[in-house]
Amino acid sequence: MPKRFTPDEYAAGVLSGNRVLLSRAITLVESTLPSDQALAHAVMEQVLPQAGKSVRVGITGVPGVGKSTFIEAFGNHLLEQHGKKLAVLAIDPTSQRTGGSILGDKTRMETLSANPNAYIRPSPAGKTLGGVARSTRESILLCEAAGFDVIFVETVGVGQSETAVHEMVDFFLLLMLAGAGDELQGIKKGIMEMADAIAITKADGPNLHPATSAQAEYQGALHLFPLGKSQWSPKVTVCSAYEKSGLGPIWDSVMEYVQLTQQNGYFHHRRQEQNLHWLRHSIRQQLEERFYQHPAVQAQWETISNQVTQGQKSPFAAAAELFQLLP
Amino acid sequence: MPKRFTPDEYAAGVLSGNRVLLSRAITLVESTLPSDQALAHAVMEQVLPQAGKSVRVGITGVPGVGKSTFIEAFGNHLLEQHGKKLAVLAIDPTSQRTGGSILGDKTRMETLSANPNAYIRPSPAGKTLGGVARSTRESILLCEAAGFDVIFVETVGVGQSETAVHEMVDFFLLLMLAGAGDELQGIKKGIMEMADAIAITKADGPNLHPATSAQAEYQGALHLFPLGKSQWSPKVTVCSAYEKSGLGPIWDSVMEYVQLTQQNGYFHHRRQEQNLHWLRHSIRQQLEERFYQHPAVQAQWETISNQVTQGQKSPFAAAAELFQLLP
Repeated sequence: MPKRFTPDEYAAGVLSGNRVLLSRAITLVESTLPSDQALAHAVMEQVLPQAGKSVRVGITGVPGVGKSTFIEAFGNHLLEQHGKKLAVLAIDPTSQRTGGSILGDKTRMETLSANPNAYIRPSPAGKTLGGVARSTRESILLCEAAGFDVIFVETVGVGQSETAVHEMVDFFLLLMLAGAGDELQGIKKGIMEMADAIAITKADGPNLHPATSAQAEYQGALHLFPLGKSQWSPKVTVCSAYEKSGLGPIWDSVMEYVQLTQQNGYFHHRRQEQNLHWLRHSIRQQLEERFYQHPAVQAQWETISNQVTQGQKSPFAAAAELFQLLP
Repeated sequence: MPKRFTPDEYAAGVLSGNRVLLSRAITLVESTLPSDQALAHAVMEQVLPQAGKSVRVGITGVPGVGKSTFIEAFGNHLLEQHGKKLAVLAIDPTSQRTGGSILGDKTRMETLSANPNAYIRPSPAGKTLGGVARSTRESILLCEAAGFDVIFVETVGVGQSETAVHEMVDFFLLLMLAGAGDELQGIKKGIMEMADAIAITKADGPNLHPATSAQAEYQGALHLFPLGKSQWSPKVTVCSAYEKSGLGPIWDSVMEYVQLTQQNGYFHHRRQEQNLHWLRHSIRQQLEERFYQHPAVQAQWETISNQVTQGQKSPFAAAAELFQLLP
């Protein structure tokens, strides 16, 4: 087991912006050991008053959309043009299968990761969605306490983690390719309606024209959709990480969103709702874990769930039957 | 307490298409009395082998879209042109507030309700979403066992019940108005991406032109969205309940959808997934009910959830704290 510090040591390290201690604290919140979790709770308790002062941006898009190069270019833009301190948390549910694709390529985000005002942290593979959600959410807070004022949370856009990420960020940015077929677009149904902005990537050279056409189409389409409670009307832009073009307008959108929602109260309200969401979510997960791992349920689950799936038993009767197995 | 029959009597009555017994059986599945629920499980067990042989269509749209007149016209079209037997289950979460709006107006669906091949049943007001979901889902099965081969499940399109309905139907139809402002459209974010078809209503007289423009816009917008696992590309049509126009194409869409998804296996697969969804949903609900109603949790909930909402306590630490209160 790696060395553990006291809660005070972790908290002091994180709050002073010490990157080694920040990384260790994130490792702690990622741990599933009960002793580590208790320690993590104590650390979080101490850093919480200093957290919350960042803009949290979720960034998603399917493989091939150019997420890494976009984040590198967009991140450098924020550091150089706006003097921001940026943390990038990357969730890669596929890395278990691909052997750690997300940061496996050493050239990925090379200039960004070398910049002292940027901090890049991949999520370890092979954890449950709930585990990833918890550790990512607490990692956001730790990075904020360490002084980072913009947090990117990156997902691959094809899995289940987008909904979870949507519930932990202020602004959700969807990266799309122009003219890609349905296979390439490949994003899950429902993600489009979560987006606060869509950026059409790789809008350079011969791609520029298709990209601006796609921009107009998506902008028209999004106007038909109902506004959310934020009252924000999603923006569609084009950009090129290669030419470093179109990055300013994306950040402008984020800032406009923040200004609008801070004025109408939604920004604060949403964060409070998200806090409550994660409390209820965490309770739900622990309840379900206990239930489904109960030996009596496990012994009957396959038989009963098959009867339900096949339509031989009502789901509600089956649920009642399973509960009767418990003490 | 109203008279109760034996499970055999309910089942025989439903299976013979006796409308009085069907209504009584639905009342039974709507009941929250434990003795009624046990009886309902026994009835469902008997009718299940005869259920499942209908096309289940969810119909939603905001107040003002003309849902009742649409359903009356569309329903009559199915009875007259296609020889269908139609059951309409109406969920109205607002009826508690408005004093039973959904069938309060006696002229609502007058010709349809007088037709012996149609059966109209409102959901009682004042139940939980979970209760409505359970009773509506079992009512679908009862109506199928009673010989109805098309089931409409109607919701008002502004509440939380649409997601639940989406999980119990084969086809989801969204009614929209042309040229209505955001207030009038008023539908919840996310519903658009659930729709298998959108029908622009009231497309008659001076409304016809705006309706066909809206049709083209929505059709263009929906083409940009990713296909779901059904591989179905949502259709947009215009219709007028007043002129009884455009109803045939809507039913054609439903039939095309059924044909496509029966061929590619999605239809059957989806129903199996829905069965499993409701089993897991029902388990989750009972777990959460037990947890949140536990006296130890109730005593601390307000304090702890406030600390979480205000960002003073981590949601995950708070969840752990609440679990420690339980035996």
